[in-house]
Amino acid sequence: MNYLGGSRENIRTDLAIEAREMLMGEVKEEIPGVLATTEVIDEITVTRVEVTTPEAEKKMGKKQGCYITLEAPGLRQKNTPLQEKVAQQFTRELQKMVELQDDTTVLVVGLGNWNVTPDALGPRVVKDLLVTRHIMKLEPQTLGEGFRPVAAIAPGVLGITGVETGEIVQGLVEKVKPDLLIAVDALAARSLNRLHTTIQLADTGIHPGSGVGNKRLGITYDTLGIPVIAVGVPTVVDAVTIASDLMDHLLLALIREASPDSPVRAVAQSLAEGDKRAVMEEVITPTGGNLMVTPKDIDTLTEDISRLIAGGLNAALHPAVESDGTGKYLH
Amino acid sequence: MNYLGGSRENIRTDLAIEAREMLMGEVKEEIPGVLATTEVIDEITVTRVEVTTPEAEKKMGKKQGCYITLEAPGLRQKNTPLQEKVAQQFTRELQKMVELQDDTTVLVVGLGNWNVTPDALGPRVVKDLLVTRHIMKLEPQTLGEGFRPVAAIAPGVLGITGVETGEIVQGLVEKVKPDLLIAVDALAARSLNRLHTTIQLADTGIHPGSGVGNKRLGITYDTLGIPVIAVGVPTVVDAVTIASDLMDHLLLALIREASPDSPVRAVAQSLAEGDKRAVMEEVITPTGGNLMVTPKDIDTLTEDISRLIAGGLNAALHPAVESDGTGKYLH
Amino acid sequence: MNYLGGSRENIRTDLAIEAREMLMGEVKEEIPGVLATTEVIDEITVTRVEVTTPEAEKKMGKKQGCYITLEAPGLRQKNTPLQEKVAQQFTRELQKMVELQDDTTVLVVGLGNWNVTPDALGPRVVKDLLVTRHIMKLEPQTLGEGFRPVAAIAPGVLGITGVETGEIVQGLVEKVKPDLLIAVDALAARSLNRLHTTIQLADTGIHPGSGVGNKRLGITYDTLGIPVIAVGVPTVVDAVTIASDLMDHLLLALIREASPDSPVRAVAQSLAEGDKRAVMEEVITPTGGNLMVTPKDIDTLTEDISRLIAGGLNAALHPAVESDGTGKYLH
Amino acid sequence: MNYLGGSRENIRTDLAIEAREMLMGEVKEEIPGVLATTEVIDEITVTRVEVTTPEAEKKMGKKQGCYITLEAPGLRQKNTPLQEKVAQQFTRELQKMVELQDDTTVLVVGLGNWNVTPDALGPRVVKDLLVTRHIMKLEPQTLGEGFRPVAAIAPGVLGITGVETGEIVQGLVEKVKPDLLIAVDALAARSLNRLHTTIQLADTGIHPGSGVGNKRLGITYDTLGIPVIAVGVPTVVDAVTIASDLMDHLLLALIREASPDSPVRAVAQSLAEGDKRAVMEEVITPTGGNLMVTPKDIDTLTEDISRLIAGGLNAALHPAVESDGTGKYLH
Repeated sequence: MNYLGGSRENIRTDLAIEAREMLMGEVKEEIPGVLATTEVIDEITVTRVEVTTPEAEKKMGKKQGCYITLEAPGLRQKNTPLQEKVAQQFTRELQKMVELQDDTTVLVVGLGNWNVTPDALGPRVVKDLLVTRHIMKLEPQTLGEGFRPVAAIAPGVLGITGVETGEIVQGLVEKVKPDLLIAVDALAARSLNRLHTTIQLADTGIHPGSGVGNKRLGITYDTLGIPVIAVGVPTVVDAVTIASDLMDHLLLALIREASPDSPVRAVAQSLAEGDKRAVMEEVITPTGGNLMVTPKDIDTLTEDISRLIAGGLNAALHPAVESDGTGKYLH
Repeated sequence: MNYLGGSRENIRTDLAIEAREMLMGEVKEEIPGVLATTEVIDEITVTRVEVTTPEAEKKMGKKQGCYITLEAPGLRQKNTPLQEKVAQQFTRELQKMVELQDDTTVLVVGLGNWNVTPDALGPRVVKDLLVTRHIMKLEPQTLGEGFRPVAAIAPGVLGITGVETGEIVQGLVEKVKPDLLIAVDALAARSLNRLHTTIQLADTGIHPGSGVGNKRLGITYDTLGIPVIAVGVPTVVDAVTIASDLMDHLLLALIREASPDSPVRAVAQSLAEGDKRAVMEEVITPTGGNLMVTPKDIDTLTEDISRLIAGGLNAALHPAVESDGTGKYLH
Repeated sequence: MNYLGGSRENIRTDLAIEAREMLMGEVKEEIPGVLATTEVIDEITVTRVEVTTPEAEKKMGKKQGCYITLEAPGLRQKNTPLQEKVAQQFTRELQKMVELQDDTTVLVVGLGNWNVTPDALGPRVVKDLLVTRHIMKLEPQTLGEGFRPVAAIAPGVLGITGVETGEIVQGLVEKVKPDLLIAVDALAARSLNRLHTTIQLADTGIHPGSGVGNKRLGITYDTLGIPVIAVGVPTVVDAVTIASDLMDHLLLALIREASPDSPVRAVAQSLAEGDKRAVMEEVITPTGGNLMVTPKDIDTLTEDISRLIAGGLNAALHPAVESDGTGKYLH
Repeated sequence: MNYLGGSRENIRTDLAIEAREMLMGEVKEEIPGVLATTEVIDEITVTRVEVTTPEAEKKMGKKQGCYITLEAPGLRQKNTPLQEKVAQQFTRELQKMVELQDDTTVLVVGLGNWNVTPDALGPRVVKDLLVTRHIMKLEPQTLGEGFRPVAAIAPGVLGITGVETGEIVQGLVEKVKPDLLIAVDALAARSLNRLHTTIQLADTGIHPGSGVGNKRLGITYDTLGIPVIAVGVPTVVDAVTIASDLMDHLLLALIREASPDSPVRAVAQSLAEGDKRAVMEEVITPTGGNLMVTPKDIDTLTEDISRLIAGGLNAALHPAVESDGTGKYLH
C-alpha cells in the first residue's frame, strides 16, 4: 500500500522480525532472500529470521545474518516461572549461535546510559553478570571448574563520554583480546506490545543508528576482528512511529468507509504523503522530537528483563552456573 | 468543531490553562465564569485562571478557585539564571496565594511514586526541602530567626502502600495539626511542550483523578479542614491524548484539502466519532493502555524542576532563606 | 571485670542476644529472669531469649518479651540456597510469634531513611512486599484465595519529615485499623560479624533509642493498642563500640602480660575508667562522633538481606505465597 | 616513638599531608627532601607538599612530585558560599599545576565503583562534567568560544569489569589521544575530620594501591605517556587505622600515667609490637577485615563534594564557564 510505504521511513524498528512484518504488509508475501521460521516452545514464540542476500539486506534495513527473537508477552505480568523458562531458552539460543570453547574469553559490553531508564538495559545487565576474567588470571583456584573468563564493561554513551562508544570498545578489545564480544543494548520497536517482552539475538553486531542511543561507529566483526553477538530488548517506541501508525490506521479506516469510486479514497491517499509529515510536525516536534512512548512502570520492567538476561548470559557462559541452576552465582 | 468536542473525553489535562484553551477552541471565545489574565515577566509567562461559578467548574472539569501557571520554555535548556528567576517568581506567587503568619505551621506532601520517574516529582521535592518543625520544637536556638515550622512527607501511592494517600494525609494532619498543606504532584498535560517547563499553583487542593497516579480521596479543605495549595508540574502526556490530537489534526488537514461540497468532508466528520476510538484501540491498547509520552531525558528534567520547586518553597516558607538568597540552607 | 562494666555504657547493641552475652561476660553465669535456648537448624543458629522480670529488663536494657535471633554467617557470601532456608525459617518463627487469622489485617512499617544506605533496610523491605489491602477492598476477585490484607509504608525519619515517626504511625493506625503491626528497622550491633547475617524478631515493638536512626516515641502495644512485632537486621556497629572493645581487649592483654602483683595491673585498671573516654574523645569525636563501622560492600549486602526479609514476610502473611514457593508474587 | 613507628604499617593514608604528619610525629622535625608550605586563604587551608628526592619518596610512601591539599572543615556543614570558594580555589590550583593551551584535549577518568557509596566519588564527578569533545568535533558552532575538548569516562573497577582499570584507560588513551589526563578517585585518610572536607591534587598520577578500590597497574605518565593529575577526596578511614590509632593513644596515656621508672612503661612499650596486632585480629578481622569507618550521612556528603569538584573542573577546563560563573553550563 503506497502510503504505508511512504510512511515507513518514519517508522523505526531495531527488530528484524518487525522489519519483515512491515515489508510483507498485508499481502503476506515472502521477501526474496529472507528466510523465516517460527516455533512455539512452552509459552515462548521463537522466530528465526535470516537475511541472506545483499538485496534483502537493503530492503530490510538489516545486515545479512541471523536474527532470533524470543517473544513472551506473559513477561509483562511478573511471572517467575516464565522468566526462568525464557532465560533458559535464551541460554540455549545463544549457545547455538556461537561455538564456545572451554577457554573462550568473552567480553560483554552493556551499551546505553545508566541515567536514562529506557536506555539503561545494557549497564544493568552488566551489573548482574558473573565476571571472572580477573579471578581466573589472579587466583583461579578460588573459582573451581566450570567457568570461562568473562569481562564486562558499560562504557556510557557519546553524550556523556565525548567519545564514540565504538572507539572505546576498540581500545578495550585491543587490551583484553577477547575471542567473542556480546553487546547488550536497549532497542526501539514498532509495536508497543513487544516492549520488555521480546529479546533479539543477532550474529551481526551493532550497526550505526541501531539501539536507543546514537552510535556512529559500528561494533562488528569488521571493526573489531572478532565475532559480535548483539542482544537487545525493545524498551521504547519512538513517538513518531506511534503517530505514523495511528494516522495510517485512520486513513485506512477512511478508505474502507468510502465507496470504491468515492473521491475520499483519492484524497486520503494523496494526503498521506505530505500532510502526515506536516501533522506530525505540528503535534510532535515542538519539543525537539526527542520523545518516546513507554509503559508507566518502565523502571520495574527494565529491572526484571535485565536480570533475566544477566541470568541467561551467566548460564550460557559458565557451565557451572548452567548445571547448578540455583542462581547461587548471581551477583 | 464537533469532532474535537467528541475527542475531548479522550484528552486528559491537569492544567486549568489547557482545559480553558481546549474549551475556547478555535473560536477564541471567553468561557462564562472563567476569568483569565496573562502577563510576561522576564521570560516567564504567568497566567491566572479563575473558575468562579459552578457552571464553569463543570465545563472546565476544574474546581472553583484560582489557578496560576508559570511557563518558561527555556527551562528545557539547562539555564541556571532562568531557573533562579522562575524559582523567585514561584515564591512570589505562592506568597500571594496564601497569607503566612510568622508561626504558620506548614505540611508539605510530596505525592507520587519514588520508583517511577515521571511520578517522582513530589517525593524529590520533599527530599530537598528545609524541614524545621522538629528543630523548632526541640532546639529552636540552633536555627535562629526567620524560620517557620515546616514538616514534609512523601507517603507513597495506593499501589505500594495499600492505603489511600488521602487517608494517610488525614491521619498525619490530625497529628501534626498544620495550618496549611502544600501538596506537590506530577501532572499530565495535553501539550508536549509544556512538559517540565510549566508550574501550576492552585488553591483548590488535589481532587480524585488528578496527577500522574490515581487518587480516590481528595486532599482538600473539605477533607482536611485546612487550606490546601496544589503545586504541580506536567511530566507526561497520556499516549491517548497524543493519539487523539494527531487524528484530529489529520482529519482537519483532510477537510481543508477537500472542496467545500466534497463528500470527503462528510466522511471525515462522520469518521471522527466512532472510528477514532476503534483506531486507538487497535494501536494503543494492546499493552493495557498504560502508556505515556515523555522526553528521553526525563530523569534529568525531573531532577532539575524538583530542585527548582524545592528552592522556591524554601524561600516562600522561610524568610531567612528568601533574604539570604545563597541557597545556603539547601539540603 | 570492672573496666568492662565501665565501658558498657559506651557500647550500644539493639540485639538482645548481645546484651545477654555482655552481661554474662566471662563468667558465663545465667542472668536471673532471662531464659535462653539455642538450636542449630540447617546452617542457621536460632536463639530464643526471653526477658521475664522487670529486674531483667532493667539489667538487659531490653523490654520484657521474647527475642528470636537467626544467625547465618554464610549470608555474607552470596549463597542463594542458604538465603532461601533463612527466609523460610524466618517465616516459621514469625508465624509462631503471632497468631494470624484468615482476615488479620497487617500493617508493615519500614523504618529508616531511604537515602542513607545503612538505615535503608526498612524502606527497601517495604518496596518488595506484596501489598494487598487495597486490592482486597476494591477488586478482591483479581487476587483469588490465600491472601491477607497487607498495607505498608516507609514514613521516613524525623530529620527529613519534621514529625516523630511514632506520631505518623499512630495517625496511620487510626485510619487503617490493622490488627497487627510489623516494624522493620536497621539495627546497631556490637559485633562486626553479625552485620547483615543476623535477623532479630521481637514481640516487644520498637522503643525510643533503638534502631540506626533516632526515635523518641515508641511504636508499641502501649502507644498503638495493637501487637507490634519488631524485625531488625544489624547493618552498622557504632565506631564508639569498636573503639571501646578494642581498648578493653588491649588492656586485658596488658594485664595478662603483667605478673599478678605488678603495678601494671593497677595502672591498667585505673586507666580504664577515665582515660578510655578521653582517648575516644581525642580520636573519634572531632567529627561529631556520628560515625559507623560498616563493610565496604554494604550497598549489596543491604539489598540482599532486604529481599530475604521481604520474601519471608510475604510467605508468612500470604498462604498463597507460602505454598507456591516460586517467588511468583514478588514485586 | 618506636611503637608509633611500629604501628605505622597498619595505617593507610592516601594524603601526602598525613604521611608527612605521621613521619614528623611529635618531634616536629622536617623530613629531608620534603618541602612544605601552608597558607590560609579565606577559610581554606592550602598546603603544598613537595617530595623531591628518592629517599623522601621511600620514606613518605609517596611518589616524587607535588601534592596540594585544600582543607575546609566547614564543608561538613552545608555551606554554599564556602563550597563556591573551595571550588574556585580548586580551579586556581589545578590551573597552576598544568599548563593548558587553548586546544588541550583533556580526558577525565572517574575511578571507583558507582554502586559502593564511599567509592563513588569518581563516577559522580564524571556525571556532572561538561563533556565537549564530541560536540567540538561534530558541530563546534553550537558551543561557541571558550571551550576545550573534554572527554570523560567512569570505567568501573576490576571486580565488576574483570579488567585492570589501568588497562582500560590505556586502551582509551590510545584512541582519544588526550594531552592531559585527570583521574578522580575516592581516598582513604588517617584522620576522620578530613573526610569529605579535604581535596588533594597531585601531579604524580595514580599508583597501585592508592584510592579506595584496588589497582595494580598505575595510571601515570610512565604508563600512558601524558601528564596525569590525580584529584582525590578522602571518604573513608580504614577500620584498622582507627583501631591502631586508638591503641596508640591508649598506650600513650598509660605511659604518661606511670612514673618514669615504673615497669608499666616497659610493659606498655613491649606490648605495642605484637599484641596490638593480636588484639586487632580478635576484634576487627572476623569479617574479613574489609571494614571502613565513615560518617552516617556519607551519601549526602559524597554528592556535595562530587558536585563541587565537577564545578571546579568545569571552570578550570572551560574559560567560558570560569568567566560566566553562573553554573549555567552544569549538567
